[in-house]
Amino acid sequence: MASKTAAALIIGNELLSGKVADANTVVLAKTLASVGVRFERVHTVLDDRAVIAAEVAALSDKYDVVFTSGGVGPTHDDLTIDSVADAFEVEVERSEPIEKMLRAYYGDNIKDGHLRMARTPVGARLVVTPQMPWPTVVMRNVWILPGVPQIFAMKMSVVAAELAGAAAFVSVAVYTHLDEGNLKPLLDAVVAAHPHVDVGSYPKWKEPRYRTKVTFDGGDLATVSPARDSFVASLPEGAVADIKDA
Amino acid sequence: MASKTAAALIIGNELLSGKVADANTVVLAKTLASVGVRFERVHTVLDDRAVIAAEVAALSDKYDVVFTSGGVGPTHDDLTIDSVADAFEVEVERSEPIEKMLRAYYGDNIKDGHLRMARTPVGARLVVTPQMPWPTVVMRNVWILPGVPQIFAMKMSVVAAELAGAAAFVSVAVYTHLDEGNLKPLLDAVVAAHPHVDVGSYPKWKEPRYRTKVTFDGGDLATVSPARDSFVASLPEGAVADIKDA
Repeated sequence: MASKTAAALIIGNELLSGKVADANTVVLAKTLASVGVRFERVHTVLDDRAVIAAEVAALSDKYDVVFTSGGVGPTHDDLTIDSVADAFEVEVERSEPIEKMLRAYYGDNIKDGHLRMARTPVGARLVVTPQMPWPTVVMRNVWILPGVPQIFAMKMSVVAAELAGAAAFVSVAVYTHLDEGNLKPLLDAVVAAHPHVDVGSYPKWKEPRYRTKVTFDGGDLATVSPARDSFVASLPEGAVADIKDA
Repeated sequence: MASKTAAALIIGNELLSGKVADANTVVLAKTLASVGVRFERVHTVLDDRAVIAAEVAALSDKYDVVFTSGGVGPTHDDLTIDSVADAFEVEVERSEPIEKMLRAYYGDNIKDGHLRMARTPVGARLVVTPQMPWPTVVMRNVWILPGVPQIFAMKMSVVAAELAGAAAFVSVAVYTHLDEGNLKPLLDAVVAAHPHVDVGSYPKWKEPRYRTKVTFDGGDLATVSPARDSFVASLPEGAVADIKDA
């Protein structure tokens, strides 16, 4: 069975003006790897309703599952709910269960601004788990996640629970003292001999412990370990700095 | 004069498998903001020659300047030079000046793998500055930058020197004790009154010093400061935690 594919849409002017670095992609990537979903693409865009809507429409059409990050607060620059609704050509409604939770939380201090957080595209479903009673909004195959990194990270248990099923991808590695120019023929050989292993080569800049990390990723250990071992066997004496198991 | 627009293409399986977090986008974003270039979009993709080539072709067509990050080493997963050549329908050649520098650096220990780093698309130009004598390869409007964060960051002086001309964007901010639900009507008012200011609202999770940071970005201080000041004046007493000047 082929792996499911995924893409992400990271939304926010602050990421493209250099105010903050995106912290959510790597968290999502780890989660998707742990449940065997192939994460193929991330688009980072500005707070622009038409742009976001076009991206959601295109990505949701092409990938099995899509995750948006950001733009879900109550203010003028929070456009994701409207954009997702635009993408699927539906209206936005006020979710009764979310409104109820908001009213319970804010009590008499609730403002219209707070109630905007109950807005959902018509037809969206709310995903709730025992660990995460606050609903996560999913429209068709699009998970609408918050941009605040701590909350985004908390949502990963919900994502993993829903997508679990496929086995995790595994990754093993070798750290070598050789540079990529010297490693190239050895890498070419292991890549050719192990077509089902994704071999990665990552040079490190000014790192005393090693020059290049070589990774071997695949569906299971029985696939990736022989590739790693044959690569290690091909290295000249003293070239191995460290070996990392899955 | 309208600002120049920019996009980036971040390349590497390691970013989508969760092995590492991208560190280059925020560095590029700060550099572009400092020279008044509008950074509109980032695409992060796998090491796939056809995908990279299609992205380079599309982005270079739509944006004034494009930056690639990653995939420029000598190994099998380094596909950016070939992909950029594909995008512009040219061949790859060995750059004489780069070959000369590589031979001077490696001397008798040079291998074919090292010489692969001299490969450039036909028609590329080499950008050199006194601070950065190692050439940066630019093909049409596409800057081909390395993925290793320390080297990527060093290239920013070259990018800034070449793109400098427009004034830097400026940003001022207010840190408030109010949440976004309470701030919403005040934000709507300042957004409506200052159409040339980009107003951003960023709630913080479990931060004792403030609840929401509100930013005011624009072309110059004379534009953004009045927006910030009128927003501050609209806040209830005791709501300001801090004010940040440009």
